[in-house]
Amino acid sequence: MASADDGFRPLDEKSLIEYIKATPSLSSKLGNHFDDLQVKEVGDGNLNFVYIVVGGSGSFVIKQALPYIRCIGESWPMAKERAYFEATALNEHGRLCPGHVPEVYHFDRAMCLIGMRYLEPPHIILRKGLIAGHEYPLLAEHMSEYMARTLFFTSLLYRTTTEHKREVAEFCGNVELCRLTEQVVFSDPYKVSQYNHWTSPYLDHDAEAVREDNALKLEVAELKSMFCERAQALVHGDLHTGSVMVTHDSTQVIDPEFAFYGPMGFDIGAFLGNLILAFFAQDGHANQSNDRKTYKEWILRSIEDTWNLFEKKFTALWDEHRDGSGEAYLSEIYNNPELQQLVKQTFMKGLLQDTLGFGAAKMIRRIVGVAHVEDFESITDAGVRADCERRALNCAKMLLKKRREFQAINEVVSAIQQIHS
Amino acid sequence: MASADDGFRPLDEKSLIEYIKATPSLSSKLGNHFDDLQVKEVGDGNLNFVYIVVGGSGSFVIKQALPYIRCIGESWPMAKERAYFEATALNEHGRLCPGHVPEVYHFDRAMCLIGMRYLEPPHIILRKGLIAGHEYPLLAEHMSEYMARTLFFTSLLYRTTTEHKREVAEFCGNVELCRLTEQVVFSDPYKVSQYNHWTSPYLDHDAEAVREDNALKLEVAELKSMFCERAQALVHGDLHTGSVMVTHDSTQVIDPEFAFYGPMGFDIGAFLGNLILAFFAQDGHANQSNDRKTYKEWILRSIEDTWNLFEKKFTALWDEHRDGSGEAYLSEIYNNPELQQLVKQTFMKGLLQDTLGFGAAKMIRRIVGVAHVEDFESITDAGVRADCERRALNCAKMLLKKRREFQAINEVVSAIQQIHS
Repeated sequence: MASADDGFRPLDEKSLIEYIKATPSLSSKLGNHFDDLQVKEVGDGNLNFVYIVVGGSGSFVIKQALPYIRCIGESWPMAKERAYFEATALNEHGRLCPGHVPEVYHFDRAMCLIGMRYLEPPHIILRKGLIAGHEYPLLAEHMSEYMARTLFFTSLLYRTTTEHKREVAEFCGNVELCRLTEQVVFSDPYKVSQYNHWTSPYLDHDAEAVREDNALKLEVAELKSMFCERAQALVHGDLHTGSVMVTHDSTQVIDPEFAFYGPMGFDIGAFLGNLILAFFAQDGHANQSNDRKTYKEWILRSIEDTWNLFEKKFTALWDEHRDGSGEAYLSEIYNNPELQQLVKQTFMKGLLQDTLGFGAAKMIRRIVGVAHVEDFESITDAGVRADCERRALNCAKMLLKKRREFQAINEVVSAIQQIHS
Repeated sequence: MASADDGFRPLDEKSLIEYIKATPSLSSKLGNHFDDLQVKEVGDGNLNFVYIVVGGSGSFVIKQALPYIRCIGESWPMAKERAYFEATALNEHGRLCPGHVPEVYHFDRAMCLIGMRYLEPPHIILRKGLIAGHEYPLLAEHMSEYMARTLFFTSLLYRTTTEHKREVAEFCGNVELCRLTEQVVFSDPYKVSQYNHWTSPYLDHDAEAVREDNALKLEVAELKSMFCERAQALVHGDLHTGSVMVTHDSTQVIDPEFAFYGPMGFDIGAFLGNLILAFFAQDGHANQSNDRKTYKEWILRSIEDTWNLFEKKFTALWDEHRDGSGEAYLSEIYNNPELQQLVKQTFMKGLLQDTLGFGAAKMIRRIVGVAHVEDFESITDAGVRADCERRALNCAKMLLKKRREFQAINEVVSAIQQIHS
């Protein structure tokens, strides 16, 4: 895969050490001591190679994008330039919300390589924590903070049109990753595709029903159009529970290589939709010592808290910057408290409905599409797994079709409980 | 204003002749004969200088953008690079609909100068024809053809995401013109602004009512957000009746310097909204020899025909290219006649509602904003003019607030008639 032309060469654990030695921004992090260096490839995601580098006096993570999708191989090429957009989004979101985004130490555009903070143990991937049944008391607080700040400050509520169009144009370059989302989220689950799979034969009929549901496909078309056309804010683009690392006190959002200017609801929906998947997977993880009943309640509370805190923080930022340079709602026009309340309510109601639609689409694709989630995959009994998945799928279909009927998140939680029971 | 740095210098009637002589693509149009050359500056628009050049064996128009708004002067700077976007849009829309877009002969990016077909007499600006009471039997047919083809072929109904994002990024560069629209269409009319004016004192209360109408401002915010964020198709961006030149048989769309990737309804709404303005202006042009009754009926019929023909042509293109490379509605997903009908109906219903919203916003700004229309301005009796304008304004406010209630264009026409009578 090496190409002398563009300065790109894929590294391995050995050549990475030479690269680090030759790169001051990285070698200085290790105090220029390399004797005790430990390098370990840990990429367990779908796309990239990830190395943990630990020395006596420092550590970092190296992430290199290769020009294909790792979990499929060279047969599915994918622009390695995604690393540029990932680094740009990490820097931008990190600037806006430094408490919840790992710091970037080094970016090499030619090598498609990012050096960033190593999220040391006990940080684990949130999805694994949800499967294990761990509660994270600050999760809703932290994720709502991250989403409120990154989405607000990259939207026209804060930015001028000039800044906005410049950024939108830049991120149009991340088109290959957008196309991948279009395919795996909005297209493949709704048609016969070689990549689709599901818990067969249990869900054969359910998968077919998704492909034959006209009302569902009508709604998906509307969401896809919004995804492709609406440059509302710099979204993470892949904000599921596998893109969040957590401890009891820390919440860190990683892997924004799908970042682009898209609808805010796509991020919020990805996060909440994956929490709903985690909720429906719990019955598959229950056993005699733990029925997961309390934990399911915690997940539902986290869904509700995340939205409610997001709404509170987002509208607080809106109020705080009402007289700023944002061009969406000029203070000379939106000049009385009643109207200010009205536009915020209307905006948040629309955003909740977008969120439910995108969240539902993300749930569906994880059950009948190409890439599944460990929440369900780790349930070894296929019959039990299928029962969990079917309930999640039915919940998603309901949310997608009826999203306009929900006025508040507690109604959504009630509807989830109803499907579950 | 001349700058040696970027190769730009503003021309006048004299220096233009030297420029033409030195430019083969232009001089050849004149058969390289310059003795009988006639050059006449005719720019009557708000922004640019326009020269008609006629020689013994050929003719053309030269349009040069200057780095400010002509009708206001150097105190309102405006990117002269708009000429690049105008030329690009003329070429793109001309390729898609050559019968209704003047051919570009020459474009000089440094000079911000376009040489294009001279639309010879009896071509006149449509707005002037509407004021004079001329019927154009092919207008609805031609404009629906132009809008259906330019909007369909530049949307994701025809394009791939890759093509779409590349074009969107390019036209993000036309940001200054977008900002101008944002200001004069979506902002100034709804706040106190030095540029606003209206037929005073008659409409003082009406202008104030616009500025104090919370429900109206809520709707305008939604439209502005769509204008700024939704890259649906390459829109003309200023498709009022002053951007169309007509004869009995010919319809030519000019002046797309506001072109960018925006919502389709912005173009259709601009055109239909300006026809509605023309309708409400007719009472001010009626006299003893012509009560304009028949003509008003023709305008309403043209509004109805334009939309209905647009819908027919647009959906026919959609059917024709169903198996093409467009990524919005993949044929493997939208794979049965009932569903195909459903998605088209839903799309067109949404587009009609966008059209009514944008059309209404364009009407309002022509009555209480900075730039008015000759339809009303040419009514010399201020009291009569104000009556016409008030009815148009009330119609626009109704359309903007109730646009979601309209299912078909004939309902809109009925509502217009009701306000008028």
